[in-house]
Amino acid sequence: MIKKAKKAIILLSGGLDSATTAAIAKSKGFECVAVSFSYNQRHSIELRSAKKVARSFAVRKHKIITIDPGVFFNSALTDKTIKVPLGRSIDPKKIPITYVPARNTIFLSFALAIAEAVGAFDIFIGVNAADYSGYPDCRSEYIKAFEKMANLATAAVIEKKGRYKIHTPIIKMTKAQIIKTGTRLGVDYSLTHSCYNPNKNGLSCGRCDSCQLRLKGFKQAGLKDPAKYKEK
Amino acid sequence: MIKKAKKAIILLSGGLDSATTAAIAKSKGFECVAVSFSYNQRHSIELRSAKKVARSFAVRKHKIITIDPGVFFNSALTDKTIKVPLGRSIDPKKIPITYVPARNTIFLSFALAIAEAVGAFDIFIGVNAADYSGYPDCRSEYIKAFEKMANLATAAVIEKKGRYKIHTPIIKMTKAQIIKTGTRLGVDYSLTHSCYNPNKNGLSCGRCDSCQLRLKGFKQAGLKDPAKYKEK
Repeated sequence: MIKKAKKAIILLSGGLDSATTAAIAKSKGFECVAVSFSYNQRHSIELRSAKKVARSFAVRKHKIITIDPGVFFNSALTDKTIKVPLGRSIDPKKIPITYVPARNTIFLSFALAIAEAVGAFDIFIGVNAADYSGYPDCRSEYIKAFEKMANLATAAVIEKKGRYKIHTPIIKMTKAQIIKTGTRLGVDYSLTHSCYNPNKNGLSCGRCDSCQLRLKGFKQAGLKDPAKYKEK
Repeated sequence: MIKKAKKAIILLSGGLDSATTAAIAKSKGFECVAVSFSYNQRHSIELRSAKKVARSFAVRKHKIITIDPGVFFNSALTDKTIKVPLGRSIDPKKIPITYVPARNTIFLSFALAIAEAVGAFDIFIGVNAADYSGYPDCRSEYIKAFEKMANLATAAVIEKKGRYKIHTPIIKMTKAQIIKTGTRLGVDYSLTHSCYNPNKNGLSCGRCDSCQLRLKGFKQAGLKDPAKYKEK
């Protein structure tokens, strides 16, 4: 008898963290349902990358969910009138302007709804606390609290069909470790996109927080970043 | 010096529970931002009622958020091919087919995002556990877990601007108590809508779970239900 693969929901942004997370889920034998979000981002390049990554992993299904633009505001990632800062944020007590209010909570809530509807109990999210940008919803205490809430929220739990698990396989890795792990698992990082502030042709700026983290990671991993950058 | 009223987010469905909850929030002196959701419900009457209720309370703002129809499926409330059962559900171990996977988690997540963006820390939701329909996400242990998660999720908390509180003022009330409380606070229940299965003219069926709970509540409160029902 062939054992049927367990389904998992993978949050896929198009960046390198979520691509690596998807590769890890696949390597553990899960049948992956990818979920991406369209939410008035500054660029649609991210979603195009997510589609390419999903295809490269031959996911069972890739759901693209539109989030009403009335929800996310007051962030440089969703509001074109707010400028994306260059360079790394330095004040650990201040949350960067690129923070989007309650974003991961909304993403995980949608993942939970889809998980319950398709009968999956495993949700993978590529949050990262080591090299993180100071976002509160990337910390493991937050993820644990969400998991606990999820296991009280759903009919599947009351009917004792299973328990939800939020997997964060890269949460403690450095960017270099993430890149090395993904490379070993066959991730094609040329499909991924990280820049907060790409130009019209989709070239990365190389200067924003996200670009700098990525470049440093590839350098420390001793690998070449296949992303395309603007000439300096 | 006039003290500025504290803002609160009120989830408003158009039903009598959330209308009463809004009245309670207002009676506590909060300046209310109402939030309703459009999510491929079987009827848009609910949203029309929510708008009327919001207007009757002179809320500061009424945000109507569209939820991608790809998220909610496998429920009689969002899928027209699933029939809404008549009468009350009786098996306490079985979740009714009108349950929508992770619905309150998604609603509260959006409320949290909007709260953070507008600088509110109080969220009101009209869940009710006494007369409830067997939904897991209407129980107080679920709400407490959500609140705990919210207080780890957000920048406002890290920056020590405040702590989120999910208010559930009617969670322990019977339907009759809810109706009496709302009547005392001036709620116009003729504006509210409860039926899962109204006819084309918007008349309530009088037979679904939600109608029966409502009718019983008005009867026990010794009041007349101003909703319009189909002739039997």
